[in-house]
Amino acid sequence: MDEPRWLSDDEQRVWRAFREAVGMLNAHTETQLQRDAGMPQAYYEVLVELSESPDQVMRMSDLAIATRSSRSRLSHAVAKMEAKGWVRREACPTDKRGAFAHLTPAGFDAIKAAAPGHVEAVRAAVFDQLTPDQVRMLGEISETIRTGLTPRCPEVEHRLAAEDADAGDEDARDEDAELDAGDGGDTGRAA
Amino acid sequence: MDEPRWLSDDEQRVWRAFREAVGMLNAHTETQLQRDAGMPQAYYEVLVELSESPDQVMRMSDLAIATRSSRSRLSHAVAKMEAKGWVRREACPTDKRGAFAHLTPAGFDAIKAAAPGHVEAVRAAVFDQLTPDQVRMLGEISETIRTGLTPRCPEVEHRLAAEDADAGDEDARDEDAELDAGDGGDTGRAA
Repeated sequence: MDEPRWLSDDEQRVWRAFREAVGMLNAHTETQLQRDAGMPQAYYEVLVELSESPDQVMRMSDLAIATRSSRSRLSHAVAKMEAKGWVRREACPTDKRGAFAHLTPAGFDAIKAAAPGHVEAVRAAVFDQLTPDQVRMLGEISETIRTGLTPRCPEVEHRLAAEDADAGDEDARDEDAELDAGDGGDTGRAA
Repeated sequence: MDEPRWLSDDEQRVWRAFREAVGMLNAHTETQLQRDAGMPQAYYEVLVELSESPDQVMRMSDLAIATRSSRSRLSHAVAKMEAKGWVRREACPTDKRGAFAHLTPAGFDAIKAAAPGHVEAVRAAVFDQLTPDQVRMLGEISETIRTGLTPRCPEVEHRLAAEDADAGDEDARDEDAELDAGDGGDTGRAA
């Protein structure tokens, strides 16, 4: 292996501050939700996803992607939430591997009760602390990192690489950007 | 409860982009460490902390704080690392509740072997993606959030509140800033 591209002292300071801020923020919102709403953050995120889906139902596989959970971890969480009456699972009649999770009225009530306290915790820890400029930059930085890590269709990758090689046909590039569009803003940066 | 201070659409976009970027980054570094070094990120962080401590030893309770782990989760991880020969635990002769974790030479070899691949993954996902300005801003934003969430001594809190009430004795404030100094840069913002 070539000599590793070690982080400079400044980069290391940034990376550690970032890791620590993320870890503390996570512990903060986890504690708040457990204390005030009696649910782990992972459940909260599942309920939010379901509450915002059409008909408040999602395929389990899509829910796993949306919440960045493994299938097994999500299954476990949904089983617990089903026992609480917040979610109802339903097998997919046309696809044995598919299953759906429905938000129940009790689940909707649970998220509605939990949301104000959670939003207040997030606002106090993040938005009250940062200047409007910092908030805007945090959004841009997050979108850049997210876009860089978004898995891309190999065919699109291949075409982009070919275009990079012969320096750019803008029409094709726009088409790729559409194929690759994420939810809410894409910086257009190639991965 | 007063009407919750809901997030605006822009704030919500920033918050979701941030959560997603953090989640994807975490999955990325976790996968990389598991694949290339056969260890979860939690072990990596423990080994880094130990390798940077004087004599490469830390009290378990300090290690739990440094890695933001619960005592039980850390105990579990350290037991696994002890079985691999990377760490050696030692009871504290003067304090039955205290115990120390020592990094072994094999543990040092493990972190040395894992570091280049991990640094490369972090560099590719974060530092290669961001402009120097964005890196600097990410550091500032992270330090601001971290400082806001850092638990403070109640006595200091009380004095700060009293000072805020009668608008400011700068000498006392400087003294508090020193008491409160974190590792590597403090924005000086009151929590």
